[in-house]
Amino acid sequence: VRAEVIGVGTEILLGQIANSNAQWIGQRLAEIGVDVLHHQAVGDNEERIADAIRHGLSRSDVVILTGGLGPTQDDITREAIAAATGRSLVRHPEIEDLIREKFARLRRNTAMPETNLKQGDVPEGATYIAPDRGTAPGLLVPADGSRWVIAVPGVPAEMKEMFTGTILDFLGERAGAGAIVSRVIRCTGIAESAVSELLDELFHATTNPTVAYLASSGEVKVRLTAKAATRDEAGSLIQPVADEVQRLLGRHVFTTNDEELEQVVGRLLKARQLSVAAAESLTGGSLALRLSSAPGASSYFVGSAVTYTAEAKHRVLGVSRETIEGAGVVSEACAREMAAGARRAFGADVAVSLTGAAGPEPHDGAPPGEVWLALDAADGVTHARSFRAPGDRGMVRRWAEQAALDTLRRYLEDV
Amino acid sequence: VRAEVIGVGTEILLGQIANSNAQWIGQRLAEIGVDVLHHQAVGDNEERIADAIRHGLSRSDVVILTGGLGPTQDDITREAIAAATGRSLVRHPEIEDLIREKFARLRRNTAMPETNLKQGDVPEGATYIAPDRGTAPGLLVPADGSRWVIAVPGVPAEMKEMFTGTILDFLGERAGAGAIVSRVIRCTGIAESAVSELLDELFHATTNPTVAYLASSGEVKVRLTAKAATRDEAGSLIQPVADEVQRLLGRHVFTTNDEELEQVVGRLLKARQLSVAAAESLTGGSLALRLSSAPGASSYFVGSAVTYTAEAKHRVLGVSRETIEGAGVVSEACAREMAAGARRAFGADVAVSLTGAAGPEPHDGAPPGEVWLALDAADGVTHARSFRAPGDRGMVRRWAEQAALDTLRRYLEDV
Repeated sequence: VRAEVIGVGTEILLGQIANSNAQWIGQRLAEIGVDVLHHQAVGDNEERIADAIRHGLSRSDVVILTGGLGPTQDDITREAIAAATGRSLVRHPEIEDLIREKFARLRRNTAMPETNLKQGDVPEGATYIAPDRGTAPGLLVPADGSRWVIAVPGVPAEMKEMFTGTILDFLGERAGAGAIVSRVIRCTGIAESAVSELLDELFHATTNPTVAYLASSGEVKVRLTAKAATRDEAGSLIQPVADEVQRLLGRHVFTTNDEELEQVVGRLLKARQLSVAAAESLTGGSLALRLSSAPGASSYFVGSAVTYTAEAKHRVLGVSRETIEGAGVVSEACAREMAAGARRAFGADVAVSLTGAAGPEPHDGAPPGEVWLALDAADGVTHARSFRAPGDRGMVRRWAEQAALDTLRRYLEDV
Repeated sequence: VRAEVIGVGTEILLGQIANSNAQWIGQRLAEIGVDVLHHQAVGDNEERIADAIRHGLSRSDVVILTGGLGPTQDDITREAIAAATGRSLVRHPEIEDLIREKFARLRRNTAMPETNLKQGDVPEGATYIAPDRGTAPGLLVPADGSRWVIAVPGVPAEMKEMFTGTILDFLGERAGAGAIVSRVIRCTGIAESAVSELLDELFHATTNPTVAYLASSGEVKVRLTAKAATRDEAGSLIQPVADEVQRLLGRHVFTTNDEELEQVVGRLLKARQLSVAAAESLTGGSLALRLSSAPGASSYFVGSAVTYTAEAKHRVLGVSRETIEGAGVVSEACAREMAAGARRAFGADVAVSLTGAAGPEPHDGAPPGEVWLALDAADGVTHARSFRAPGDRGMVRRWAEQAALDTLRRYLEDV
């Protein structure tokens, strides 16, 4: 079964709201093995909505519309479906009653505007889905060649209610058995092109699962997607390929289960019963934020000294005047003194530090993107390295966080 | 000028990422008077991408594609554009050089995979937009009947760079007159319903600009939107209404220019030539992150002590054992000692502190959402208050940041 999703509403086109319904529906349909090959969005214009439906029906078995089912004059999804499927609209007395009753219950002191009753208009031969939360019913409208047009309200809670209550079962039955399962393997310390080259041979020989790469600052995601009759079978198709991907990428892989790097680090710290502190400059607190992001982080994360100025590095972390005036604050010496100072100040088992130039201006002689990091552990292990991160301030910061967390991960894996 | 936006990527259809690019582009094009009547999204399939482009060109003057310009084998937007416009792909030597140079600068020790060079393929007769952040160039490809196909990378930062640098000017010129201008007035310390009640009468009498309210944790946005022939005219329609909104909302307004609260605070600190430090617990570094977010923040932001455990509050900030064991870490005494300790440790003119229970569990006897904040200034001003923030961990943290920054703003306005 092929479905496509049409978001209806001028506010989507103007960017006033995000079309988050399409994302949610995409996820749910993938889980039940319904292929979604197209999304569309279109404004509150009957002709264009009807054209979008016709175009959808020319290539998909099911066209799903979200939005435009409300009571106002710019809600015209019903009319457009009627036009596109060649059916007339019939006022449905049961829905009329339902709307009157809902209105009376929700706004006891107001007379209901008669326009509200247009929500009782249903294309001839269609089935309606009674709303629980809202007042707009959903619609299941048969079209030529055993195709279907489905319409749900644009309000996410009302849309979800109808999907989980009715539509997913309706579509799952038509899709027969069939499921798409995805698995995300994430790695650091390696470029997207190097990942794709390492895996090239494997995916020349494999079509199910398929592979996709997604690179962001300091990280590459490898997404495997398998199709099979059941979720279990799809999972069995993925497993050996995921194992092979992991073998080929080696220690660069930090999760085969779509975890965030800070979750992996948190898990390792808990398992080793070690505490961590940080000292950071260019990241301005974002390293601390990631280390503290998991509920229960207080069992391993002690704290971070965000020392934005040279003076703060000296006062709070004990970075020496010699280092500040000599090598400067973007240097191996400064990074090492920051890590050691943080471990001492917070009394932690291990500490990581970050210092560098986030840009756009150079900082203390270092060009934008230059970063030094260090690790200092109670067992005597110390480590420092530098790199040059590409991109704007936000990207440089993200690269730096990734590098610090990854250094911590590799240290913890070896402890 | 009519434009439509096509998001390319199977991950969009599967709902693995939100198509946020379409929303951002929709907003920008509305501002320069370009009509967007359709969005599409399509997977990484050359034929379907080419079909989507052809369909787009049949009804729009400009088709804008986002995504699929990377170096891997599933990046096929270039090929699809070539197919849809009947042009052949030519490898562009200038882009080749640019890619080689970028790669060499960023990863000094790695040989560049040859696949990267496919990013130098350009449809014959097209103009390319050199990337600043990434390695994928954007494309401006002429099509039949003075239509255009435009392609930009899917990475939001790279996409935005090309729009603000090149594409908006290119399209604005073609769009001629007609503009929608929005103005956002933001306030804190007041509920959405109170804002709407204060402004009710004003917007009964006004239809251009229109008004919309948007509430989020610790903040209400009032968005005024005016339509006119030119941006200047639309601006003149907004100005008197914006002034009146500001008068009615008084000190709750922190910007009439859509600035972030931390930008306003940064501006005030610069103007007063004062430095700030922070001490934070439940926010885990996010207060520091906001204080350090503006370029040039190092002229006023000294640093923050993220003290996640009670022991760290004692060691780094000097919070007394009596307070920790008596009133506890979520208390007025602790907040005051943290602010004073941070001001001392960092040597700053003013310091703010946050301590509380972010949830979902109670923390040191305090229920989820309970927060204490304090301010401590060199001129002798001190202040402390508590509140109970609604929502999940993320929302509680956001409320806490807003309250701390707003306390700082009001102090600085009075200095």
